[in-house]
Amino acid sequence: MIKAGIIGATGYGGGELVRLLGLHPAAKVRAVTSRSYIGRAYHEVFANFSHHEELYLQEENIGVMAKECDIIFLALPHGVASEKVTESLLKRVRVIDFGADFRLSDASVYEKWYGVTHHAKDLLPQAVYGLSEIYRERIRGARLVANPGCYTTCGILALYPLIKEGVVDPGDIIIDAKSGVSGAGRGLDLGVHYDEANENIKAYKVGSHRHTPELEEQLSLVAGRNITLSFTPHMIPMNRGILLTAYGKLTKKYSYDEINEIYNQYYKDEYFIRMTKKGVSPETKWVKVSNFCDIGFTIDERVGRIIVIGALDNLVKGAAGQAVQNMNLMFGLEEKAGLDMAPVFPA
Amino acid sequence: MIKAGIIGATGYGGGELVRLLGLHPAAKVRAVTSRSYIGRAYHEVFANFSHHEELYLQEENIGVMAKECDIIFLALPHGVASEKVTESLLKRVRVIDFGADFRLSDASVYEKWYGVTHHAKDLLPQAVYGLSEIYRERIRGARLVANPGCYTTCGILALYPLIKEGVVDPGDIIIDAKSGVSGAGRGLDLGVHYDEANENIKAYKVGSHRHTPELEEQLSLVAGRNITLSFTPHMIPMNRGILLTAYGKLTKKYSYDEINEIYNQYYKDEYFIRMTKKGVSPETKWVKVSNFCDIGFTIDERVGRIIVIGALDNLVKGAAGQAVQNMNLMFGLEEKAGLDMAPVFPA
Amino acid sequence: MIKAGIIGATGYGGGELVRLLGLHPAAKVRAVTSRSYIGRAYHEVFANFSHHEELYLQEENIGVMAKECDIIFLALPHGVASEKVTESLLKRVRVIDFGADFRLSDASVYEKWYGVTHHAKDLLPQAVYGLSEIYRERIRGARLVANPGCYTTCGILALYPLIKEGVVDPGDIIIDAKSGVSGAGRGLDLGVHYDEANENIKAYKVGSHRHTPELEEQLSLVAGRNITLSFTPHMIPMNRGILLTAYGKLTKKYSYDEINEIYNQYYKDEYFIRMTKKGVSPETKWVKVSNFCDIGFTIDERVGRIIVIGALDNLVKGAAGQAVQNMNLMFGLEEKAGLDMAPVFPA
Amino acid sequence: MIKAGIIGATGYGGGELVRLLGLHPAAKVRAVTSRSYIGRAYHEVFANFSHHEELYLQEENIGVMAKECDIIFLALPHGVASEKVTESLLKRVRVIDFGADFRLSDASVYEKWYGVTHHAKDLLPQAVYGLSEIYRERIRGARLVANPGCYTTCGILALYPLIKEGVVDPGDIIIDAKSGVSGAGRGLDLGVHYDEANENIKAYKVGSHRHTPELEEQLSLVAGRNITLSFTPHMIPMNRGILLTAYGKLTKKYSYDEINEIYNQYYKDEYFIRMTKKGVSPETKWVKVSNFCDIGFTIDERVGRIIVIGALDNLVKGAAGQAVQNMNLMFGLEEKAGLDMAPVFPA
Repeated sequence: MIKAGIIGATGYGGGELVRLLGLHPAAKVRAVTSRSYIGRAYHEVFANFSHHEELYLQEENIGVMAKECDIIFLALPHGVASEKVTESLLKRVRVIDFGADFRLSDASVYEKWYGVTHHAKDLLPQAVYGLSEIYRERIRGARLVANPGCYTTCGILALYPLIKEGVVDPGDIIIDAKSGVSGAGRGLDLGVHYDEANENIKAYKVGSHRHTPELEEQLSLVAGRNITLSFTPHMIPMNRGILLTAYGKLTKKYSYDEINEIYNQYYKDEYFIRMTKKGVSPETKWVKVSNFCDIGFTIDERVGRIIVIGALDNLVKGAAGQAVQNMNLMFGLEEKAGLDMAPVFPA
Repeated sequence: MIKAGIIGATGYGGGELVRLLGLHPAAKVRAVTSRSYIGRAYHEVFANFSHHEELYLQEENIGVMAKECDIIFLALPHGVASEKVTESLLKRVRVIDFGADFRLSDASVYEKWYGVTHHAKDLLPQAVYGLSEIYRERIRGARLVANPGCYTTCGILALYPLIKEGVVDPGDIIIDAKSGVSGAGRGLDLGVHYDEANENIKAYKVGSHRHTPELEEQLSLVAGRNITLSFTPHMIPMNRGILLTAYGKLTKKYSYDEINEIYNQYYKDEYFIRMTKKGVSPETKWVKVSNFCDIGFTIDERVGRIIVIGALDNLVKGAAGQAVQNMNLMFGLEEKAGLDMAPVFPA
Repeated sequence: MIKAGIIGATGYGGGELVRLLGLHPAAKVRAVTSRSYIGRAYHEVFANFSHHEELYLQEENIGVMAKECDIIFLALPHGVASEKVTESLLKRVRVIDFGADFRLSDASVYEKWYGVTHHAKDLLPQAVYGLSEIYRERIRGARLVANPGCYTTCGILALYPLIKEGVVDPGDIIIDAKSGVSGAGRGLDLGVHYDEANENIKAYKVGSHRHTPELEEQLSLVAGRNITLSFTPHMIPMNRGILLTAYGKLTKKYSYDEINEIYNQYYKDEYFIRMTKKGVSPETKWVKVSNFCDIGFTIDERVGRIIVIGALDNLVKGAAGQAVQNMNLMFGLEEKAGLDMAPVFPA
Repeated sequence: MIKAGIIGATGYGGGELVRLLGLHPAAKVRAVTSRSYIGRAYHEVFANFSHHEELYLQEENIGVMAKECDIIFLALPHGVASEKVTESLLKRVRVIDFGADFRLSDASVYEKWYGVTHHAKDLLPQAVYGLSEIYRERIRGARLVANPGCYTTCGILALYPLIKEGVVDPGDIIIDAKSGVSGAGRGLDLGVHYDEANENIKAYKVGSHRHTPELEEQLSLVAGRNITLSFTPHMIPMNRGILLTAYGKLTKKYSYDEINEIYNQYYKDEYFIRMTKKGVSPETKWVKVSNFCDIGFTIDERVGRIIVIGALDNLVKGAAGQAVQNMNLMFGLEEKAGLDMAPVFPA
């Protein structure tokens, strides 16, 4: 059994990871840490686990954890992970970071968007961006995996084949994304007070959301040239789920079938990507509590654009499920081990 | 007192109109009709009115209604209004149509998008598009007003000054809109079953929604040339509200203040348009149960685009409130009579 | 115009009061205070008011406010109001307290349930319990009115005629109440975080909620003897509304019509109480954003009980609307001035 | 592998059963039937299954299904199951009925509450009420199991030890229950239209809900005498979950610890019942998407009552999960096979 440690286990992403590892045939949570709940039983923080986990929240000591565990998942504020992870640590234990510290290859871009100093620039070359569908082979050999952002996962998967095959102009991409409230985390804030978020929709961080450079770096790599794009996230009144609507300018006239064939080339063997049929638009309810990303597209001939829609569960494929998928690759397990559950509907 | 008749009064738009006219200082509902509830008290259909309206639902007879009323509001399926409204009727009574039959100047465009025959092409030249902020003077003299679609109202108000002043390229506009479920009406359908719509978001009618030609006609008139645009509506889990995110390509470099000044030129005296301050993004909760349309924008210099966000209550400014505003103009009343209420929060 | 001051105007109850007074024909908000937002425009706290209120939040100075205003509304934590209100203040200004400090006639009961010292015991005899339907005459002459709790308003109105007429055994009453989340206020707390309150229902303060002694005192006065009762509040995932289900043991066999007649005796002239028809159960959606309290009942002959259900909007009839109704009585205005609006549906 | 057939597989209960059997180590869905979707792929009805189930909906033929399957689950309207199930069928296959036809031992009580004729009275003596925690041994040997109602499951589990041990007066029980909307099924109805059910709470079938006789029969058996009780269900705006608040009159003074000890006697080895700690009230979010029933209680000494609160997921422990638990018993499997998952939070 793979022994897992989780640092920062009391957020929604951490809770979902504990739940998924509890269903995993070959992994087990060995230790969980927290700053606010040291000494408390884990099920006091998340009562759903009261018959499932005999875990107590410890004070963080990453060195000790590295000895006891085969893998450490970090769910920490940005800027903190890059302080904790060192070359020496990585020699002893594999690490998957839920945060942004190791997602961008260029520390100066990171420092500009995040406004903090990066403390482990030397590790960036070995960090692997943890989107299994694209970096599968590199993840297999990685010691340090940067788990992608929730929006980013959805955006890259939606656009990857189109950009790779030159179907859309990489310089003219607009991504309009909508997320449930759990994406904002469990911390207290007026914006996530029930009466403020319920029966409301808002855009936030317009033109300045930190998933933008991550989308740009990844899609630039695919395009083979530096691109910038428009990214606008919205918060909508539901617990889980991301729906992302991407608009691309077609480089020439394409039929539905031609583009469908391109998606098939890339995704027909990708278990966790489900292409919807022609005329069927993805909906978050069909992926809830699962590791699937549903993708569908429409060609709008009138304007020469393709509209691609992706849907995923932000806490699973957008966070903890993707992390387990990465862990499976890193440890030579079947990629879908512990993740092969149908979505839950209605939930 | 203006005596109003409402044909098709048992949908959400009709109910909201009855509520607003109940608050109006110079108008009163005289008759309401329905196909499904003939003979029933109105408050049996909408129990919120049980201490307010002594109305009984009648069988529709537009000729009789024209004699008893000063204005008739039509809330009918598309294709039906154009059968009911005639030149002769308009001589006797003013009409505001909630539906699409008189919104498009070109009947062939209407017939193509709606798939039904238009029965009153001869009336199209005199029908006035009922967006008060733009067609105020023509509405004042109109006998037949086509009340705009909910999405369309929000989209036009958001983009009008920018297109008029050449700030954005009218050939490169993307509108990503999100609506609460009441926009789909009170009819039964699996898509609006609670457990199907709750905790879910979906796009629908991608590239084919019928508000598209309406947006295009109106914005083409503003641009002075024919334009096509991308419009994608989404349904989100809340009762009321539309948030619309429009992406425009800037024709040159603009500062925030320059564009703000342009909006001010057009809207500083428009009571029902509230420009949000720099950095503040409109949210539907701040316009709920009101006739306001909040608009804010962000310049994304990195990509040379402006992102304009509009928010309104789809049943008020997007339907019944706009209709009352039009009625006020048509009857020479103060434009905000019966509409000058602060939004309700939290609701 | 009555000039009103509001101390503690930045909670949901305060916001609703500002909204209602904005619709009032004979009253106007003159001053608002806050501890957290001193100097800020009111519409920065509640953006719904951005075209409606030219108010700035001041530091609290109740003496100055008493000079400038005809009435002061207090929305303060319990224990604080009893420090602010003095005999001398009441000579200069009328006061309506949203809190609990003056609701219970016995300060020792107050101190036991609230765990704080009461600082104005001498004022208790002159404080009038502000439930207009029951204490109308006394409220007219009052200088100090204790606005009832939201649950209490609903519970008393539901049970008052039954207890008064001896229909139910006052010693065997169970009240099971359900409230939307706004009842918990705008303060930050994990329990009102969106993802914690959404898709969830819980009971809270079982057997210990502070509205219990208030219900007991008021219903004891009606019964003419001291009674205790069971009261269990629940929080449900919606913004506004209280539904209260009360179970009473019938003292003898009653027909539906007999009890309906009793309710009619008490309530047929009460504008804000709407008895539902036989077989129709009140629902919160039909009273939302209004001052109505809907009441319906069912006789369960099999068990000899009556089940009475009441529904109201906790921020209106359960708080700000009731306060305006009291103000109207205190100033000799028509009781429903500023309150005669149909509920908003769907909202 | 146990081969399972499901008749009426296109409701929410059927969908949840398919999902749970998909996770089961020793069972597999062999056939699904439907009246409305014959010939369609199952994932066209429930798109969550698009990568999981290769099932096509067949026309119902229970005789053929009995040959192909080891167990048949019936999810049919009441009155229909009693037509389908015969002595001859039961010789060939085991049956678990989700409906009410075999829940009540007395067909005349059934016919009175359900208003239909019972067609299989001869089978009632062998039908076993499928509440595993109480009828475990009888379920093991049963050919025909009547899966309990969702409310009933929660109500019986909450009260069973108290009535069995004479802690509460069985003649003075009030059950106030609250359910998410999925309890009303997937059929179209104005009451479950999103805008009608959202932001609303209502009681329904007050004094007349059909789970009442089921609660009474089961609790009468426990009490050893015929009892009647008050049962009031409410519908609240969430997808899944039941919270049930039961009020019992204590037969004498009890301490918390004494009653806790009684619950422990009955439930300490019941895996799917989780007693909450003193002062912790069950919430539906902690049991969502799981087979757990959480129970907590408070003694209200002031009124001599105990308030017991139960929470479960109506589609799992209240329907499909309970059915799988029964299947496990009937086939000699571990009782929690396929059901031992932690609840999902937030969901």
